Amino acid sequence: LAGSEAAPGIADIQAAAARLAGHAVATPLLSSDLLDRELGCRLFLKAEPLQRTGSFKFRGAWNRLNLIADSDRPRGVIAYSSGNHAQGVALAARLKGVAATIVMPADAPAIKLANTRALGAEVRLYDRARESREEIGDKLMAETGATLIRPYDDAGVIAGQGTIGLELAAQLRVAGLAPDLVACPHGGGGLIAGLSLALEARPPAAEIWAVEPADFDRFGRSVRAGERRAIAPGGQTFCDALMAPMPGRLTFQVNRRTLAGAVAVSDAETAAAMRAAWRHFKLVVEPGGAVALAAALSAKLDLTGRTVVVVASGGNVDPALYAKVLAAEM
Amino acid sequence: LAGSEAAPGIADIQAAAARLAGHAVATPLLSSDLLDRELGCRLFLKAEPLQRTGSFKFRGAWNRLNLIADSDRPRGVIAYSSGNHAQGVALAARLKGVAATIVMPADAPAIKLANTRALGAEVRLYDRARESREEIGDKLMAETGATLIRPYDDAGVIAGQGTIGLELAAQLRVAGLAPDLVACPHGGGGLIAGLSLALEARPPAAEIWAVEPADFDRFGRSVRAGERRAIAPGGQTFCDALMAPMPGRLTFQVNRRTLAGAVAVSDAETAAAMRAAWRHFKLVVEPGGAVALAAALSAKLDLTGRTVVVVASGGNVDPALYAKVLAAEM
Repeated sequence: LAGSEAAPGIADIQAAAARLAGHAVATPLLSSDLLDRELGCRLFLKAEPLQRTGSFKFRGAWNRLNLIADSDRPRGVIAYSSGNHAQGVALAARLKGVAATIVMPADAPAIKLANTRALGAEVRLYDRARESREEIGDKLMAETGATLIRPYDDAGVIAGQGTIGLELAAQLRVAGLAPDLVACPHGGGGLIAGLSLALEARPPAAEIWAVEPADFDRFGRSVRAGERRAIAPGGQTFCDALMAPMPGRLTFQVNRRTLAGAVAVSDAETAAAMRAAWRHFKLVVEPGGAVALAAALSAKLDLTGRTVVVVASGGNVDPALYAKVLAAEM
Repeated sequence: LAGSEAAPGIADIQAAAARLAGHAVATPLLSSDLLDRELGCRLFLKAEPLQRTGSFKFRGAWNRLNLIADSDRPRGVIAYSSGNHAQGVALAARLKGVAATIVMPADAPAIKLANTRALGAEVRLYDRARESREEIGDKLMAETGATLIRPYDDAGVIAGQGTIGLELAAQLRVAGLAPDLVACPHGGGGLIAGLSLALEARPPAAEIWAVEPADFDRFGRSVRAGERRAIAPGGQTFCDALMAPMPGRLTFQVNRRTLAGAVAVSDAETAAAMRAAWRHFKLVVEPGGAVALAAALSAKLDLTGRTVVVVASGGNVDPALYAKVLAAEM
């Protein structure tokens, strides 16, 4: 499976779930009596900020690390990431006794840089404007023989992220429920690809919506064009986790088939969702992690009377930015 | 049991757990790889901000409501509270179809007042300095025949809060662990009384510590005196949930026997713990809910090498105060 060109199947996701058991957190589905009253639905928030390292990325990283041949592990792993994938790979590598080098932009959130280092990874900073992370990574791989852990366009990573779908379906089943609609952030598309493949194998079918920042609507553009497209130049968002310029090749192959469509949200709507998560769920959600909740709260999805799951994908945000969002300054 | 003068037994707590099943949230035990490395222990945070209404109070309120005779329910219930007990009683009453009147201080946190009203309770405000909430309550009860739901000095309420002890012991057992030390906030003492009675019935014995704000050290003073004592006049704290002037009669009778001792923390230490909960657990914890974590982080408890549980009892805090704490202005 590792490095394979095909999308993972349900057997791969189930194998990932078995590998993750006892290592990853089965994150809770949170709900709010007051918010359900306001929205007229039953809304559950899948709380990946409570995952190890504060985002869903640990799932894919742990699964992918376990797929590396024993003989290759001593040469270490390498990853490119603005932060959450970095922390997921760093912890997974430490737990497996594998050396990790993470190539991170110098302007990544300070908390993500600090945590990646604290988890024992070697961080190699680069300048987004003037350096190519791929060149840096290729050079490091040529020198060390390390295995590259891609953030999303990798079947082993997608299978790991897909465990979130099996998990939320099982958690709802305990309550006698099944999801009618699931909204999930889309960056490179790995999380929602894995999630949609898992839910496809768990009928009845749920509508699954990709949510993106308005200026980083790579999936919406690509779906409308019928092929992978990049965002328009000069786009801005405070969702640092959702800045991939184009859907992945493998993830788009999956998502164009499995998803109901794409929803775009403004940064102001995302900031309001971060405040709502703070108030109703007592959960710290980072900008990129809050876009699905933003879509639900801004009436862009048909929720009435339905069982709805929004995925909150991470909670790693700098305190100064978070304090500003809480104070409604953005 | 309702209104009885005796402390609840383990059978009462088990009956409460059966009543709460499917109605209260079995809140998760959160942990942090980074914090465990820093502290040299395995620390679990029992996340009651994720409980319905954002604090543990729903447990006791729901159990107590269920103990009211059917014939008394139409006359409604009444409670005094600065906020968390208010919300717990309001939701429990709404779910049982019972009218609730809550007597709240006019200076209670705005979020607690708003939520209590949004949950359908009638709120009767009073001026802490000039009015007696007991007089207001007595008058209302005389007029309506409503049942008073005390915040802590009631065996039915204590039994409800005690479900948290059964729950955390069961959650740790799944991971092959048992708590060596548990730290829990002490206001009136109802939560820690129920918790300690539950854990006493689940050997091996854990050390259980009451944690209080430095100026509201009613349990510490009372233990040292060998009898119930009030705090010194003029004390200040931002822990609005922990301002009871004296331990309850029933709760002190339990806690003087079951607890290892009392720890006092400053508001600055509590604010630091709120920031740590934000960073390491992605959890919003209110001041009064963070004192046990504050005791753990300020080296006031012997944690090294042990399995430690800190109870975070609630997360209802006004956003402006929270933003100030995050920005380290207090």
